[in-house]
Amino acid sequence: MLNTVTIVGVGLIGGSFSLALKDQKLVKKVIGVSRSGETARKALKLGIVDEVLPLEEAVKQSDLIYVAIPVDVTLPVIKNILDLLKPEQIVVDAGSTKLALCKFVAEHPNRHRFVASHPMWGTEYSGPEAAVHDAFRGRSCVICEREKSDADALQIVEDIYLKLGMSLVNMDAESHDVHAAYVSHISHITSFALANTVLEKEREEDAIFELAGGGFESTVRLAKSSPAMWGPIFMQNRENVLDVLNEHIMQLRKFKSCLEKENYPYLMELMDNANKIRRILE
Amino acid sequence: MLNTVTIVGVGLIGGSFSLALKDQKLVKKVIGVSRSGETARKALKLGIVDEVLPLEEAVKQSDLIYVAIPVDVTLPVIKNILDLLKPEQIVVDAGSTKLALCKFVAEHPNRHRFVASHPMWGTEYSGPEAAVHDAFRGRSCVICEREKSDADALQIVEDIYLKLGMSLVNMDAESHDVHAAYVSHISHITSFALANTVLEKEREEDAIFELAGGGFESTVRLAKSSPAMWGPIFMQNRENVLDVLNEHIMQLRKFKSCLEKENYPYLMELMDNANKIRRILE
Repeated sequence: MLNTVTIVGVGLIGGSFSLALKDQKLVKKVIGVSRSGETARKALKLGIVDEVLPLEEAVKQSDLIYVAIPVDVTLPVIKNILDLLKPEQIVVDAGSTKLALCKFVAEHPNRHRFVASHPMWGTEYSGPEAAVHDAFRGRSCVICEREKSDADALQIVEDIYLKLGMSLVNMDAESHDVHAAYVSHISHITSFALANTVLEKEREEDAIFELAGGGFESTVRLAKSSPAMWGPIFMQNRENVLDVLNEHIMQLRKFKSCLEKENYPYLMELMDNANKIRRILE
Repeated sequence: MLNTVTIVGVGLIGGSFSLALKDQKLVKKVIGVSRSGETARKALKLGIVDEVLPLEEAVKQSDLIYVAIPVDVTLPVIKNILDLLKPEQIVVDAGSTKLALCKFVAEHPNRHRFVASHPMWGTEYSGPEAAVHDAFRGRSCVICEREKSDADALQIVEDIYLKLGMSLVNMDAESHDVHAAYVSHISHITSFALANTVLEKEREEDAIFELAGGGFESTVRLAKSSPAMWGPIFMQNRENVLDVLNEHIMQLRKFKSCLEKENYPYLMELMDNANKIRRILE
């Protein structure tokens, strides 16, 4: 059991991570760090953290610092923490992009105390109120550049994720970002764009409200996600995201062309092919 | 309580409708009609129907005939049933498009015994095994061209849907098809196209399998839907679907342009706008 963990960013991911640590009795005390006093107060009130401190003071007292903030601010914050770090301390991030961060800290003298991780879990909600118990169970957690982290730091971090019920996947940072673009980032863009499509075309909002069924809700729910979280992800992973987005637009154009030309056999072929996703999802 | 109801098409919708009628004790006997002997046997075995008969014999014995088959074959089948109908009998369809069917039967001498309905519920599964209990509760059911159906027929059909827990929405067939394109058909196309995108780009299927989280699953689950059901829907509603699809591709291009030009403020604006879908979904 760790004595003290600091969570930087006590929202959806950081808050859920804190609750999981507490539920599994993996830590005695959790300190929260937040740029927003309001968020900090909520996290305290919800029992997500035991205390709120400024970053520097929190780091001093901690065995492990867990950073779960938008990926753009993650860069300077991780550097800042690495600057403050004593030899036995560990810093971990939970960001949805890994290459920019891994490059950013590559030459830092304390790089070996950092573990780059991405627990593959999330919802469309944000803030401390979005934190849930037992969030990560059954999901994958990607660890990047294992070889650059100290063995003791890795063991502690991987042990935590395993105790939270996650399965570990090792990947280099570049591969992580490519795969994340396919299985996560593109889903968010299509969902945002679908929401804008419907909001643009469908002026009679009552009709959407009355008629929207489960199918619509499931494809569009990610459009409720936080722009402050997703904007930086798309920007940091823009080349991979653009690559997948171009392919996606091309695939949509195939459907469009089938409908325009009333090419029913090809339309059926496109859908039959899409059905192959069953063997991956089931 | 009705004596006998015939369900033409004992799959996801027809099967669930039959189970709901039985659970609510709204019918004494349900006869199933299916082109496939295999499907008919499954429906019998699962207790979805009490008996299986050829269409003509089934119609003879029934107070109400419920048609839940792909929308292309719905046209000739409804006409066939209307040809056979005695004055007090009722025929209802459950199709996802309404204009083509309503036009097709407009001049039929028995048009007044037909009720055009679309219960807005479904899943990505199909066949009798996909039928579930209490499927329709809390969902909307659109009734089109109410004024063209006999009052007694309407009352029986609307009464059934209300007893199944649905709320009724009246709409002309043209409006129905426009709204259905927005809130249902486009979601299926984006999901099919997203599945094809990922299957095309992501050759390492193990990586998808390991990493795909809840977000991916929710945007792509509709890609598991039956092409035999959705192909005819897209073709019958092609003008509306094309209209929404063009808008959707334009919306995706806006995201693409933001990323290409690294126009972060506009990217944030697009996502902020998409967030407005919250007030519709929540």
